[in-house]
Amino acid sequence: VSDIRTIEWKTDHLRILDQTLLPITEHYRELRTVDDVIQAIQSLAVRGAPALGAVGAYGILIAMNEFQELDDRLNAIDSIRNSRPTAVNLSWAVTRVSSYLNEGKERVLEEARLIEKEDRDANLAIAAHGVRWLEENLGLDGYRILTHCNTGTLATTYWGTALGVIRALHDEGKVIEVLADETRPLLQGSRLTAWELQKLGIPHRIQVDSAAASAIVSGMVDFAIIGADRIANNGDTANKIGSLAVALACKRASVPFLVAAPTSTLDMSILSGADIEIEERSSSEVTKLGTTEIAPRGAKVFNPAFDVTPRDLISGIITEVGVFNPMNGQTFRDFIEK
Amino acid sequence: VSDIRTIEWKTDHLRILDQTLLPITEHYRELRTVDDVIQAIQSLAVRGAPALGAVGAYGILIAMNEFQELDDRLNAIDSIRNSRPTAVNLSWAVTRVSSYLNEGKERVLEEARLIEKEDRDANLAIAAHGVRWLEENLGLDGYRILTHCNTGTLATTYWGTALGVIRALHDEGKVIEVLADETRPLLQGSRLTAWELQKLGIPHRIQVDSAAASAIVSGMVDFAIIGADRIANNGDTANKIGSLAVALACKRASVPFLVAAPTSTLDMSILSGADIEIEERSSSEVTKLGTTEIAPRGAKVFNPAFDVTPRDLISGIITEVGVFNPMNGQTFRDFIEK
Repeated sequence: VSDIRTIEWKTDHLRILDQTLLPITEHYRELRTVDDVIQAIQSLAVRGAPALGAVGAYGILIAMNEFQELDDRLNAIDSIRNSRPTAVNLSWAVTRVSSYLNEGKERVLEEARLIEKEDRDANLAIAAHGVRWLEENLGLDGYRILTHCNTGTLATTYWGTALGVIRALHDEGKVIEVLADETRPLLQGSRLTAWELQKLGIPHRIQVDSAAASAIVSGMVDFAIIGADRIANNGDTANKIGSLAVALACKRASVPFLVAAPTSTLDMSILSGADIEIEERSSSEVTKLGTTEIAPRGAKVFNPAFDVTPRDLISGIITEVGVFNPMNGQTFRDFIEK
Repeated sequence: VSDIRTIEWKTDHLRILDQTLLPITEHYRELRTVDDVIQAIQSLAVRGAPALGAVGAYGILIAMNEFQELDDRLNAIDSIRNSRPTAVNLSWAVTRVSSYLNEGKERVLEEARLIEKEDRDANLAIAAHGVRWLEENLGLDGYRILTHCNTGTLATTYWGTALGVIRALHDEGKVIEVLADETRPLLQGSRLTAWELQKLGIPHRIQVDSAAASAIVSGMVDFAIIGADRIANNGDTANKIGSLAVALACKRASVPFLVAAPTSTLDMSILSGADIEIEERSSSEVTKLGTTEIAPRGAKVFNPAFDVTPRDLISGIITEVGVFNPMNGQTFRDFIEK
């Protein structure tokens, strides 16, 4: 996977691997306008909280190239920031980079590159902290792992978050099997995670999301690990719909449930998960698959993109600065600033 | 839905509504040979534990018409009995009807008709017991209900089990909304349950299976109700994969989790869920949808058709003879025979 570049800045445009076409077709798309950027984000051609941060950062540069007036630029930047509501890294990166707007394109490019570099560094640090946590808390020779959605190279700019931990374990020869939830409705698990695991040669099987609880409770899994889209200050974690069910099953089976995410996923402005806005997406994601209709015509749909896992179900939040244990009552902000 | 006949015996063949083509196409199929019957069962053209019981019963008649030698008949009957391993009603009905084999076709037809009639009566009795349990234990003016898989007319010969309870509640004007899990991999919820609910005019929305935990834990659901494929003597219940995750979320939210099933679903030969054989089905159910490939080529799959919900998560098993509470330590057999 090291030759896969999820996103890459090219002089005057952003080149992304179009994730809507995977796993069958590997096609790169060029984003040259703010509309291109927003369309790519909303259609999930690029997704994953850390990757969205980098796209948002380079998006400022695209806005500066496209618009010369400050008002137009600010409007365009706002549109990028708001193109997906739940992933905090997007608005975090857009806000950070756009603070250099009046220092010119070179400074903005420098900051966007820095965000990308920080994400790469964070990926490796998360992987190392995760492996150490597992050694200290489980200490197995080999692990049977369950993961949900995609948190790998395709969700970040380098190794990934949860999948980065799995990759580091695999490099030590310690992965027996990964059970990858397919992750309805958009199948990031079966389309993207399985594709990455196949390229990395990591043993794995795909399962429907609702097989996760059974696999965990029946003793097929040593730990579960997921990413995060937004983490409240108390540790409550918003992530892809289905994460909560995995956490509940882990609790039942007394199996560790881990979150891997950079500290940029923390939203210090919210105290708990009750305040996290959950994006509801189009019903057609659920009623159609490709050209196949899988529901009666006119069917109504409840399609939340995320759920919130309460902190008491989370064994640890693995960040680039160490592993935060939200069960002990400390706030995430205190942990980071300590 | 009252004009829908899931299965119907016609002089010399069995007519079934082909559920693999729903919800877009309503096509009836004629089963004239034992191979027809087995193919219909294994492809899920007909499914649902009580409906499979009736199909198995009439299947004996088809075997008698097709084969004249006793050995051939017995072989054919065994093939029908074993065509799906988890649904106990199938083997129960086949065994019951085939005990009349040497009394001739008329006696066998009479017994098959009796099984169908008993299922219809059980449907109505389950609905009545379910409504009474809800009145006594929740007593709401209107209910927000979550269900998984399909347990309606299409899974039985009449009103259904869990969906029969919902239908009876709706007849009293007490259904606010049904959240129907789509039920991957074969989408019995979005294809079949939503189709039935639409025909009955019952307010509902479809959701991906992994949205269930979030809906329940966030307070959108007053109770969850499912069917059953096989119930162990202690009350542990095998049902469509995903049922366990719904039960775990109900436990977390202190929301009743109900099972609705005829007593014929009890397998007295097994003490607990640990002894229930779980059918694993083809990987192509997960890797393809219609003609669309949704996983990398060659992907390995874990595809269990059922999971087991332990009895301590079940608030009540609604049968035609009353509501069994497995939490109180009584065996299901003692409850039935009491």
